[in-house]
Amino acid sequence: MTTSQSSPATTASSAARLTGVVPPLLTPLTAEGEIDMVSLERLVAHLLEGGVDGIFALGSSGEVAYADDARRAQVLEAVTGFVAGQVPVIAGVIDMQTDRVLHHLREAERFGLDGYVVTAPFYAITGPEEIDTHFRTIAAAADGPIWAYDIPVCVHTKLSAPHLLQLGRDGVITGVKDSSGDDVGFRRLAAANRAAGSPLTLLTGHEVVVDGAYLSGADGSVPGLGNVDPAGYARMHRAAQAEDWALVRQEQDRLAALFEIVFQPTDKVGPAAGIGAFKTALRELGIIATNNVSTPMSPLEGEAVGKIRTILEQTGLLGGAHA
Amino acid sequence: MTTSQSSPATTASSAARLTGVVPPLLTPLTAEGEIDMVSLERLVAHLLEGGVDGIFALGSSGEVAYADDARRAQVLEAVTGFVAGQVPVIAGVIDMQTDRVLHHLREAERFGLDGYVVTAPFYAITGPEEIDTHFRTIAAAADGPIWAYDIPVCVHTKLSAPHLLQLGRDGVITGVKDSSGDDVGFRRLAAANRAAGSPLTLLTGHEVVVDGAYLSGADGSVPGLGNVDPAGYARMHRAAQAEDWALVRQEQDRLAALFEIVFQPTDKVGPAAGIGAFKTALRELGIIATNNVSTPMSPLEGEAVGKIRTILEQTGLLGGAHA
Amino acid sequence: MTTSQSSPATTASSAARLTGVVPPLLTPLTAEGEIDMVSLERLVAHLLEGGVDGIFALGSSGEVAYADDARRAQVLEAVTGFVAGQVPVIAGVIDMQTDRVLHHLREAERFGLDGYVVTAPFYAITGPEEIDTHFRTIAAAADGPIWAYDIPVCVHTKLSAPHLLQLGRDGVITGVKDSSGDDVGFRRLAAANRAAGSPLTLLTGHEVVVDGAYLSGADGSVPGLGNVDPAGYARMHRAAQAEDWALVRQEQDRLAALFEIVFQPTDKVGPAAGIGAFKTALRELGIIATNNVSTPMSPLEGEAVGKIRTILEQTGLLGGAHA
Amino acid sequence: MTTSQSSPATTASSAARLTGVVPPLLTPLTAEGEIDMVSLERLVAHLLEGGVDGIFALGSSGEVAYADDARRAQVLEAVTGFVAGQVPVIAGVIDMQTDRVLHHLREAERFGLDGYVVTAPFYAITGPEEIDTHFRTIAAAADGPIWAYDIPVCVHTKLSAPHLLQLGRDGVITGVKDSSGDDVGFRRLAAANRAAGSPLTLLTGHEVVVDGAYLSGADGSVPGLGNVDPAGYARMHRAAQAEDWALVRQEQDRLAALFEIVFQPTDKVGPAAGIGAFKTALRELGIIATNNVSTPMSPLEGEAVGKIRTILEQTGLLGGAHA
Repeated sequence: MTTSQSSPATTASSAARLTGVVPPLLTPLTAEGEIDMVSLERLVAHLLEGGVDGIFALGSSGEVAYADDARRAQVLEAVTGFVAGQVPVIAGVIDMQTDRVLHHLREAERFGLDGYVVTAPFYAITGPEEIDTHFRTIAAAADGPIWAYDIPVCVHTKLSAPHLLQLGRDGVITGVKDSSGDDVGFRRLAAANRAAGSPLTLLTGHEVVVDGAYLSGADGSVPGLGNVDPAGYARMHRAAQAEDWALVRQEQDRLAALFEIVFQPTDKVGPAAGIGAFKTALRELGIIATNNVSTPMSPLEGEAVGKIRTILEQTGLLGGAHA
Repeated sequence: MTTSQSSPATTASSAARLTGVVPPLLTPLTAEGEIDMVSLERLVAHLLEGGVDGIFALGSSGEVAYADDARRAQVLEAVTGFVAGQVPVIAGVIDMQTDRVLHHLREAERFGLDGYVVTAPFYAITGPEEIDTHFRTIAAAADGPIWAYDIPVCVHTKLSAPHLLQLGRDGVITGVKDSSGDDVGFRRLAAANRAAGSPLTLLTGHEVVVDGAYLSGADGSVPGLGNVDPAGYARMHRAAQAEDWALVRQEQDRLAALFEIVFQPTDKVGPAAGIGAFKTALRELGIIATNNVSTPMSPLEGEAVGKIRTILEQTGLLGGAHA
Repeated sequence: MTTSQSSPATTASSAARLTGVVPPLLTPLTAEGEIDMVSLERLVAHLLEGGVDGIFALGSSGEVAYADDARRAQVLEAVTGFVAGQVPVIAGVIDMQTDRVLHHLREAERFGLDGYVVTAPFYAITGPEEIDTHFRTIAAAADGPIWAYDIPVCVHTKLSAPHLLQLGRDGVITGVKDSSGDDVGFRRLAAANRAAGSPLTLLTGHEVVVDGAYLSGADGSVPGLGNVDPAGYARMHRAAQAEDWALVRQEQDRLAALFEIVFQPTDKVGPAAGIGAFKTALRELGIIATNNVSTPMSPLEGEAVGKIRTILEQTGLLGGAHA
Repeated sequence: MTTSQSSPATTASSAARLTGVVPPLLTPLTAEGEIDMVSLERLVAHLLEGGVDGIFALGSSGEVAYADDARRAQVLEAVTGFVAGQVPVIAGVIDMQTDRVLHHLREAERFGLDGYVVTAPFYAITGPEEIDTHFRTIAAAADGPIWAYDIPVCVHTKLSAPHLLQLGRDGVITGVKDSSGDDVGFRRLAAANRAAGSPLTLLTGHEVVVDGAYLSGADGSVPGLGNVDPAGYARMHRAAQAEDWALVRQEQDRLAALFEIVFQPTDKVGPAAGIGAFKTALRELGIIATNNVSTPMSPLEGEAVGKIRTILEQTGLLGGAHA
């Protein structure tokens, strides 16, 4: 019943093999809150030059939850245009329940995407059978591969390893973006996936423990911080492929030090702190024009900005020899 | 900065005084999953004949989380038409973050609604300042009063009593639909509201403890079970107004016995059980045609249906003298 | 297998009928952190003069979690001495798992208590079968009736209504002290209990919604705030027995206003705020000598004390005509 | 204010350097539920022969929550006797609040332990200042180093990295046993600890992701599964010290496969499943006599036992060449 079998072979096969570094692309905004297309183009170029293997548009870091339908379409049109086939582009079709996700799928179809990222249903409480129906219904309607996005901090449901594996074996999903924070569960999923012939591609969303995820069996990462330092994540991925664990750890330790930028705002939580810090860093690096974020969030100001600059310097991204 | 001050005086004043029984209207579906307009009209008539004081369309019980934008518009057009001004109609504009809610507001404006129901932001983690900006931004854009919908089981944030009261004093919200399950917090909110001159209208969403909520100071209820037995909730409300607590308790105990229908499905959770049971009861009562529910849920079948019939009989709604 | 059947008939029958107001007795401390026996005696007298129906020693409000075994014995010896049979005394035998609770039972036996209060196991994760074994093992070893203490905020397990009812029918427990905060669940438990012939006595632990609990079917309350104003809770109970709901609500509203004392400390959480406020109020009322609390908590100081005095005055307990 | 400065230098310095593999020792029981001293001696010998660096008695895996004070003393006397100084022995002094922990400290002093393991307070809700007072009060009273045991699944509080580091800098604690499941937080703690000159020794309690913890900066592990295969964890530790990451991963993958024993019981949760599986494996390996566990748990039976045997065979511990 998988759609990927009936979709154009080139798209399906290329996306099915999407591994490595696939950052969840930020959405730069102007001071007035509109999409800043010039900054978005520069950001895409920054990622491609950094050596990323794919781009994930309209993820949580892309402020998908804040974007109305018109903005979502604007983002997809712009990003697929800027990327122009250099790497696969996958997109979040994030919404509460099945029919609303199907709506986003239909809207996104015209952009020639290489895959769609789908969470468990949320808002309304949902049991295992319904989660299963949700993914199968969406996959049957999609013109490309489906990635399961395991993000309980947002949807308040954890996708179980046996269920994910079953969906992989049945060709319903092509892979998992794991942002569950459950490293024990991730290793169990990776081991079970290997034992089943690796039907799933496994990407971790946790920026500061990608090295451990590689040991567990991750095929790559979806690091929000990869917007700021894509080259660092690309180097770490190549080192992991080469089993050069000393280098993996060295890059990871540096990237973990860089990740401290998200803890500098003391008056904000969640994406207002995290995305706010990523955008502030990119502004300081000259890649995007503002650190503005979607309503109802407000941009970082004050001491946090200076502290972020200091961290960028200490980790070699600003005014140093490393970058 | 309140919109209600600038909106048509008649609408604002009538809705501002909306108290009593305001059931969250179910959305009957055909076997094919489309809106069953004939059943919807009968259900609206059932509520009006039962003596409800208002109707809340597109709430959680109305399967708003499952409805794409087209369906939401269909529901609002049909319901406002069927109600035809006999009682106020308020509608949920439920979505993840501010801009998406604003989109639903713009879509809903043409239906002449008497108010809008708004939750805290969800999916992305959000702090107190952002929740405040969220409600103020939406109120400023709305052509009618805003109700805060406190439903942490869905949005995973509890609206605090001091914040709700401040929003009420500032004219941002007209009232609260409390589905928080926090009866201690509700009494504190009610007491603080009274002390402040009652800027807020307080409705409880918990079907089986409305009597206690009346003692605490509730102005009415938003009972999902009120779809099944609107007359029972209307009798209880009149008894509470008359301070006839023996009758309040008698009705509440009968309605609590009726509410046991939602616990009969042993293989379902959340709305698949709750809305499923309400729809099954209404089908058995001859008011709607099917007990179908939105994808990815599936309708109740098997033993649960017979048990629901028995409860309808025991509580006087089927084949008895009471109804 | 019930112990109550084989225990001395007088104890079992008197305790089995324990209803009404049963405050969880505070444990007054000296400035040095020892039990203040003079204050404890005065506090017991205050409760008895207020008209309480029983006393619950070594509950959460009695700082049982902080008391080592020697202190627990001191409290029980003193309290049973001061009460001297005027009302039943029940005691918490609170500990992590079965054998540790059995140890406390054996220690407590010599004090001639009228019942024991037992929580679900905690610290180690425990499933339904183990919770069942836990209560049955303890009841089989006890020389008096067992009360189930449903307090998920402390033990992180909710006792289910069907399980409690089964334990009641089997004579394992005599009643429930409900501090679950789940008013919907409490009404379901009360209704099921009535339908089963009322094997259980049901007491609520939520000070500010006792009126609603009476409507639901509570047989009484276990209010921490009853240490401060036992007479108020006794008046409310008599009014509820007389079905004088206007008076019930009037007392409850006043007691809810009094309960605001626990929200005055802005720098403390949990019992440091709650027990701290109760002890501060009792010190201001001249009943106990200090507001000291167990290590690692520290006593209330500063502005909160003045605010508590003001609330005592506003609710008629200090310098007013009401008390 | 640290006690370790005033405690015997040899004990403090040796324990302060405790790194490597420190399994939380199981407590074997007879069929009648008494401590099985013969099995306990064999289990200690099994660990020492496996090459462990220390032994942690009376941890969660040692069923400390189930053990009354007499049993705790029995365990400590026996274990310190069996170990006889070959490796350091540290012990859990786990209880709800400060004074109860101090009681266990006093009881344990006579056994010449090399350190004590202390959790955050539990049962009663506790804030940051109280947690700080708790650890400082206990450390001031202890005759050996204190380890902070970060186990939110049991105590429902997460110890924060900045607080742990401050306690380390102040000499209050010597190290952390991290069972928090928060791998992101663990890496941040490890990085901050290194930057501060490594005042803390960091041990991870998560058996299947020790490899990733080593990359993050762990000094060792406290693996419950290390009771079953101490030699495997010792090999992994030596490989990590030698930076032989291919071998680390190979051992970790095998140990993760072995850990699947805890998922075989489908009718149990928590320690009834986990400790039950460890004990069943050790019985099948001929090291302990029964798989009995403390009341209210019941031992594993049925299919799970056969599945555990199969896993022992597949991972080289039973009937194979590896062991």
